[in-house]
Amino acid sequence: MKTTLTKRMTFCAGHRLFNPGFSDEKNREVFGDCANPGGHGHNYVLEVTVSGEIDKDTGMIINLKEMKKIIENEIISKVDHRNLNIDVDFMKGVIPTTENFAQKIWAILDKSFEGKLLNKVVLWESENNRIEFSR
Amino acid sequence: MKTTLTKRMTFCAGHRLFNPGFSDEKNREVFGDCANPGGHGHNYVLEVTVSGEIDKDTGMIINLKEMKKIIENEIISKVDHRNLNIDVDFMKGVIPTTENFAQKIWAILDKSFEGKLLNKVVLWESENNRIEFSR
Amino acid sequence: MKTTLTKRMTFCAGHRLFNPGFSDEKNREVFGDCANPGGHGHNYVLEVTVSGEIDKDTGMIINLKEMKKIIENEIISKVDHRNLNIDVDFMKGVIPTTENFAQKIWAILDKSFEGKLLNKVVLWESENNRIEFSR
Amino acid sequence: MKTTLTKRMTFCAGHRLFNPGFSDEKNREVFGDCANPGGHGHNYVLEVTVSGEIDKDTGMIINLKEMKKIIENEIISKVDHRNLNIDVDFMKGVIPTTENFAQKIWAILDKSFEGKLLNKVVLWESENNRIEFSR
Amino acid sequence: MKTTLTKRMTFCAGHRLFNPGFSDEKNREVFGDCANPGGHGHNYVLEVTVSGEIDKDTGMIINLKEMKKIIENEIISKVDHRNLNIDVDFMKGVIPTTENFAQKIWAILDKSFEGKLLNKVVLWESENNRIEFSR
Amino acid sequence: MKTTLTKRMTFCAGHRLFNPGFSDEKNREVFGDCANPGGHGHNYVLEVTVSGEIDKDTGMIINLKEMKKIIENEIISKVDHRNLNIDVDFMKGVIPTTENFAQKIWAILDKSFEGKLLNKVVLWESENNRIEFSR
Repeated sequence: MKTTLTKRMTFCAGHRLFNPGFSDEKNREVFGDCANPGGHGHNYVLEVTVSGEIDKDTGMIINLKEMKKIIENEIISKVDHRNLNIDVDFMKGVIPTTENFAQKIWAILDKSFEGKLLNKVVLWESENNRIEFSR
Repeated sequence: MKTTLTKRMTFCAGHRLFNPGFSDEKNREVFGDCANPGGHGHNYVLEVTVSGEIDKDTGMIINLKEMKKIIENEIISKVDHRNLNIDVDFMKGVIPTTENFAQKIWAILDKSFEGKLLNKVVLWESENNRIEFSR
Repeated sequence: MKTTLTKRMTFCAGHRLFNPGFSDEKNREVFGDCANPGGHGHNYVLEVTVSGEIDKDTGMIINLKEMKKIIENEIISKVDHRNLNIDVDFMKGVIPTTENFAQKIWAILDKSFEGKLLNKVVLWESENNRIEFSR
Repeated sequence: MKTTLTKRMTFCAGHRLFNPGFSDEKNREVFGDCANPGGHGHNYVLEVTVSGEIDKDTGMIINLKEMKKIIENEIISKVDHRNLNIDVDFMKGVIPTTENFAQKIWAILDKSFEGKLLNKVVLWESENNRIEFSR
Repeated sequence: MKTTLTKRMTFCAGHRLFNPGFSDEKNREVFGDCANPGGHGHNYVLEVTVSGEIDKDTGMIINLKEMKKIIENEIISKVDHRNLNIDVDFMKGVIPTTENFAQKIWAILDKSFEGKLLNKVVLWESENNRIEFSR
Repeated sequence: MKTTLTKRMTFCAGHRLFNPGFSDEKNREVFGDCANPGGHGHNYVLEVTVSGEIDKDTGMIINLKEMKKIIENEIISKVDHRNLNIDVDFMKGVIPTTENFAQKIWAILDKSFEGKLLNKVVLWESENNRIEFSR
């Protein structure tokens, strides 16, 4: 039986999808309006799930305040109200699709929860599409 | 580690739940108001999840435009604003419960995504109940 | 200063939009897929708002249990899991657009709340469109 | 391939988080405002998922009316509008964190569905955090 | 033409509905399970709307950061994770129905926005019922 | 009695809030992270409400297909996946706050509905704040 705790947080960011190795036509064909040079942005929803034993003294897998602080420090503070193509170190040289963005978030958070296991990262770009990384 | 992309789409349809092999009393007992002869309907929500590698050049598992077109062509165009008991070929002879409906959608979509694996189909009949098929 | 209480309830129903005085072509042109002969349906959301004084002894404009019972008896029990074109007395001879449906609901509920004033009726046909009647 | 049916239900309850074996300072440190002596409360959302074969005659894994009745009888009727620290037998002596509460709900429901397998219990304390127990 | 800005915030609180001037039977009859002695609670949603001119230099009716701080200081910090019957000064001697609670919030906020007019306060006790005060 | 029809649509866009007449310090003080030079973005939700008589032959205030086309042509096609500071003619020289953006949308749509009256425009920048223009 698996027990998990999930925290949902939100942020907004700007991005533009294009591959500098592609021609303008190819970028337009692959990325459509997401390749518009001025860029655009989204209200992202991030769900982070950890698994672990329930501590007998606290009744918690992990303290939600601590979990919120980790996600805030490691991710939200670095991407909220930022441009993913320009302002975010861990996205340098990466096409900021939801897939690539979620993969980077997974890689960072996977080292952050001492004694707990990162179980799932879900990143919603809009109410109609999302990426999931999970064990 | 599993990576998936999920697309959410909506449609509306009419249906009536009854088994022609049941008596009226039995249909009423099993299906309740869902067996009312005039039928009724729902705003369905369909979530389709595929898994696969992230393409290095595009940063995508699958292009969302392509994924949307497949779901639109294979499912939505055939059921939206239709009566599931009368108008939909792939539902002929099938009691249109959410279970049976989702199973047919799974069977159709499982052949549709070249090089990707259909991972999950979730079908919501209302905000309070849903069926999931998953690998 | 206006004080109101709003109760949200849900139901599902089937319907078909067509005007028997129109040709098939005209029905198709005006109502599109909503004119499909087999009909379809929706999960409707109904919000009913009443205004009135806050009773000093109960702290209530109206008891929510009473309000729910009125809406249940007058509307929900007559339309839930029904076909609006066939099964609902107060919709006989009426094209069951959201506009006409909400107007009938308003007319019925406007007589139902003794000593309170019906202030607004909102009827959602989907998450993307709704009709409001208000004073 | 796994097939599941999920039912979503809601209830409200009051609780206070504290460990009688902790000092006041320790309770404050661990539980923060959740340890306030007067207690507080939440609108909980409970999602229950069962798996099983689709019955050929009904097209159902389990009849939703039956499933709703089980969850209503076993859980909702015992916790809705109750104080989890005082009024609920199965929570006696348990710190009413979402983790512990969900674990008790799992244990109760795991015995309730004859011939079906309880697959998942999700308990949302707010729109921003939830606990999941799953097979 | 009216221009308004609305800020949505959330908090949780505990309460019990009863009138000390009523008999136990009368309290049970009027308030139902809301009169259970142990109390219960809710995740409240509060929407505050102000109207005013759009400032030419900032493009704002009021700075959202300032608006959030006012609502946080005047309301949220005093009710979040509190018991409305015990812990909240401005609710002393008041039956904590959503009606009475929203009225007190209106009265407090109506003095808080210098140069702007409080236009509406909406308080949701659950996704299914809410109270509105408006000019 | 007022009768209205509301259509909800969504789009995403990028923007940066700053006043070129302000110093960097002043921009930072007024607009906070919204003034970050790289810009960011949002998933906007736009609700457009028109009022009018219900046509006896169609049962409609206005045909939803027609209403959707007007909003699509006049607004969505010009702002979706665009940068409001750079790409949108009607926003030239305007600080793209939600207030100013909604005001421009109102001005454009107010001329678009022949024989119907634009009643309300609501623009959500996130689930937590929105601007309303209404008659």
